[in-house]
Amino acid sequence: MSLSATQIISELTALLGASAVIGEPERMGNYLNEPRKRFHTGAAAIALPASVTEVQAILRWANENGVGIIPQGGNTGLVGAQVPWRGDEVIVSLSKLDRIRAIDTAAGTMTAEAGVILENAHKAAEDKGNIFPLWLASQGSARIGGLLSSNAGGVNVLAYGNARELTMGVEAVLADGRLYQGLNSLKKDNTGYDLKDLLVGAEGTLGIITAATLKIFPKPEDYETALVNIAGPEVALPLFELLRERIGGRLNAFEIVPALGLDMQLRHGMLDRDPTAGPSPWYALIEVSRMRGGLPGTLMAAIEAAFESGLIDNAVLAESLADRTRMWAFREQMSEVQSREGASIKHDVSVPIAAVPQLIAEGIAAAERLVPGIRAVPFGHMGDGNIHFNFSQPAGADGKAFMAQSDEKVHEAIYEIVLRLGGSVSAEHGIGQLKTELLRKVKDPVAIDMMRAIKTALDPKGILNPGKMLG
Amino acid sequence: MSLSATQIISELTALLGASAVIGEPERMGNYLNEPRKRFHTGAAAIALPASVTEVQAILRWANENGVGIIPQGGNTGLVGAQVPWRGDEVIVSLSKLDRIRAIDTAAGTMTAEAGVILENAHKAAEDKGNIFPLWLASQGSARIGGLLSSNAGGVNVLAYGNARELTMGVEAVLADGRLYQGLNSLKKDNTGYDLKDLLVGAEGTLGIITAATLKIFPKPEDYETALVNIAGPEVALPLFELLRERIGGRLNAFEIVPALGLDMQLRHGMLDRDPTAGPSPWYALIEVSRMRGGLPGTLMAAIEAAFESGLIDNAVLAESLADRTRMWAFREQMSEVQSREGASIKHDVSVPIAAVPQLIAEGIAAAERLVPGIRAVPFGHMGDGNIHFNFSQPAGADGKAFMAQSDEKVHEAIYEIVLRLGGSVSAEHGIGQLKTELLRKVKDPVAIDMMRAIKTALDPKGILNPGKMLG
Repeated sequence: MSLSATQIISELTALLGASAVIGEPERMGNYLNEPRKRFHTGAAAIALPASVTEVQAILRWANENGVGIIPQGGNTGLVGAQVPWRGDEVIVSLSKLDRIRAIDTAAGTMTAEAGVILENAHKAAEDKGNIFPLWLASQGSARIGGLLSSNAGGVNVLAYGNARELTMGVEAVLADGRLYQGLNSLKKDNTGYDLKDLLVGAEGTLGIITAATLKIFPKPEDYETALVNIAGPEVALPLFELLRERIGGRLNAFEIVPALGLDMQLRHGMLDRDPTAGPSPWYALIEVSRMRGGLPGTLMAAIEAAFESGLIDNAVLAESLADRTRMWAFREQMSEVQSREGASIKHDVSVPIAAVPQLIAEGIAAAERLVPGIRAVPFGHMGDGNIHFNFSQPAGADGKAFMAQSDEKVHEAIYEIVLRLGGSVSAEHGIGQLKTELLRKVKDPVAIDMMRAIKTALDPKGILNPGKMLG
Repeated sequence: MSLSATQIISELTALLGASAVIGEPERMGNYLNEPRKRFHTGAAAIALPASVTEVQAILRWANENGVGIIPQGGNTGLVGAQVPWRGDEVIVSLSKLDRIRAIDTAAGTMTAEAGVILENAHKAAEDKGNIFPLWLASQGSARIGGLLSSNAGGVNVLAYGNARELTMGVEAVLADGRLYQGLNSLKKDNTGYDLKDLLVGAEGTLGIITAATLKIFPKPEDYETALVNIAGPEVALPLFELLRERIGGRLNAFEIVPALGLDMQLRHGMLDRDPTAGPSPWYALIEVSRMRGGLPGTLMAAIEAAFESGLIDNAVLAESLADRTRMWAFREQMSEVQSREGASIKHDVSVPIAAVPQLIAEGIAAAERLVPGIRAVPFGHMGDGNIHFNFSQPAGADGKAFMAQSDEKVHEAIYEIVLRLGGSVSAEHGIGQLKTELLRKVKDPVAIDMMRAIKTALDPKGILNPGKMLG
C-alpha cells in the first residue's frame, strides 16, 4: 500500500517541520532540472534534513512505507542519478549538512559533511596551506556527498586519484535508518570488508553518505606547465612513459587536445591568444608540481629529453600565471566550445592507457564512415586513459537531425571499440538512469549478479535511489 | 549430510587427479604450520588446482556438498586466515597458478596469478625497468593471492599504498564456482559497485582471487636515506609534516625506532656498526626516491630545514649502498632482535598519525604500570600511523610466565588506548581466526551487520573460509 503525494508531504512535514519540505511542483525546479536536461520526471516531495538524525528519521520512515528516496547533492550529475526515475520518489537534499567538521594538516585529513560545496572544501584546505585536489568544472555547485557517490574524477586524478582514492572513511545512513559510522582517518585498517569503497561510487543505492574523512595534501610551492606539440596520440604514449620515469608522482596532469579544438576556440574568440608553440595536429598539456624548497626545471629537463629522443619538436612552457591560466583554459573550454559548434555526440570512456591511440584512430574512422563530415574532437585525460570522445555535427548541418540520425549508431560504434580494447563505457560520470541498459549489455553478468546480491542485502525493500545503476 | 574425509579425498581426486590432492596428514605440514605456530587444526585434504577452471570445479563441488574451503597462498599470514578452523575443511593452495600473464610498462600494469611469489613479481617488474612496490619481510614466500586477500602493507605504503591501492582489478572464483572477470587495467571505471576492493582484504571469505592486475611504477634512479636523531614521537610529527611539504609523494618511508632497539641489536651483534649519528632517545629512518634526471639533495635540504627550525640536532645521511643497507637492517631486524630478547607481547595497531605520540606515551605508561620492568619497543611505520607496539619481557624474567600473566592484560590496555584514539586493532595483519572475537567487541555493530549481509549474499552456504573474519 503506497502513500499518496499528499500523505508523503504531510508525514515528512511531521518529521522535519514545514520549512524543510517542498511539496509544490513549481518550487522543485532547482532539484529536478539537471545539467543536460535529459530527464523530466517529477517528485513527490523534496526533503531538506538539517542533521544526520533527520536523515535517519526520513529513511526509517521511507523504509517502513516503501517510499523511494533519491539522495541529492549539488544536482550536477550527468547521468540522472540524482533526479527521479518513476516520479513518486522523495528527493532528499543534503545541502543543509554543510559543515567542515574537522581539519588536520599533520594527519592530512579533513572531515566534511555531504552538503559541503566542493569549492568550500577547497577553501577550507587552502586556509591551512593545504589542498583538496579534486578539481572539476562544477566545483562551484557540486557537493561532497554527490562527488563521492559518483566517484568523481577531474583533472588531478593522475597525481592524487579519484574521489574514492581521496576518501579515507565515510559516515552513511543505511536503508533502514541505521547509521554506519565509518569515518576514520587511518591509513591502515584491516578490520573487515572495505565498506567505504562500496559506498563511494554506489550512486546512493546502498546508503546515503552524510560525511566523509577526506585526504588533504601540502600545497605545492609552484607548478610547471607546458603545452607540447605532438604528432598524435601514438606519440603521447612514449612521452607519457618518459614523463613518469622522470617525474613520478609529481606529474599532475597529462591531457591531450586535437588541433580542431584550438581552431574552434580561436574562431569563437574564447582565447585572447594562441597558447601553443605553433600549429600541430595534437597538443599535450602537461603539468608538474614543485614542492617547497624544490628546484625548478624538472619539466623543462624532461621536455629536453623528449626533444633529444626525437619524440617531439616543439613546446612552450608557461612563464607566468597568465600563461598557465590560458593553457588550462584551452583545455577546460573544450566542452563549452563544442556546444557553440552545434550538436555533439559524447562518450565518457576509458581504455588501458596503451590502447588510447588505437581507440582514437579506430573511433574516428568508424564515426567518419557512419557520418560523413562529422568532426571528431576527442580530448581529455590521456594519463588516465580517459578520453572524452566527442563528435561535433558536420559544419552547417541541422543539429537535431544530426542527433536523431547519428547519436545511437555512433554510440554503438564507439562502445564496440571501447569494449574490444578492455575499456569502460562510463569512466567518470557513472550509470545513473542514463546507462542502466548499456550496463546490462556490456558488464560481466557475474559482476551484475554480485551487485544485485549486495543491493538486495543492504536495501531489501529497494527504497534507495530506485531504478538507478542496476535498473 | 556432510562428506567424510575419505569421500572428500576421493571426490577431489576424481576432479583433479591424484597428484593434485594430499590426503595424508603427515604430508600436510607445509600447509598447516603457520609462522607463529598458534593454530594446530588438521584439514580434510589439500587441493592443488593447476588452472582457474579447476578452482571453479572445486568450488562448484564444495558448494553442492557444503565442504568448507580455505584458500591459501604462501601460508605466511599471521592471524590464521589461511589455515583450518574446524578441521574438516579443504585447503585450496593456489601455488600452481603462478604465471605472470602480462606486463605493460607504458600502461604501468602487470597481471599476475594468485600463486605468483611476491619476489617473482618484483623480478618480473624489474626486468622491465619497473618496480612493484609491495615490500615486506615474507616476500620470498608470500604469494599475490594471499597478499591481496589480506590487503598487505609493508614498508612502502607511504608512497605507493597498500595491496588494495596497488590493485586495479581482480579475477575471482565465487562460492558457487562462477568466475568474476574483473581483471582490468583502467584507471577510471565508474560502471557499478567497487567489487575489486570488496574482494581485496576479504581474507578469502567472499571469493578466491585467482589473478590480479597490479600497478607497476618506473624504478627510481636512486634513493636518499637518512637516520635522524629525534627526541621522541612528538617531534616525529612536525618533522613528518615538514617532509610532506617539501617532498610530497616521493617520501617513501618514515619509520621510527626507539634507542632500546639499537641497544639490543648492537648487543646481539646484529649490526656491524652503529648506523646512527650518535645516542638519541629515538631515531627516524627517512627515505626519499629520486626519479631519472632529478638532482640529488632533496632529503639533505629538508633535513637542513629541520635543523634550522630547531626540530632536530643530529642526523646522518647514507653515503653508500652499504650505509643504506645498514640503516634498513636496523629497522627490519626489530622483530628478530625482540625474539632473541625472549618473549614479547605484540600489537599491530594504527591510529591517526597525529595521535601516534599520545598512543606511544600512554601505551608505555599503561604497560609499565601493569608489568614492572616490561620493556617497551614500539617501532614502525610512523608515516602510516601504524606502530608495531611490542613489549619485550623484563630482562631475565621467565618468558612463559610473563606471557601467561601479562599478555591478555597488556592487550586490553593497549587496545583500549587505540580505540579511544580512533585507531585500528589490526592495521596490517587482518582478522583471520585470531581476532574474530576482538572484532566483535570493537567494531561498529552496524558495520558488522553490513559485512554479514554481504557475506550471506555472496556465499549463502558459508563454504568460503568458515570461521574467519566474522567468526
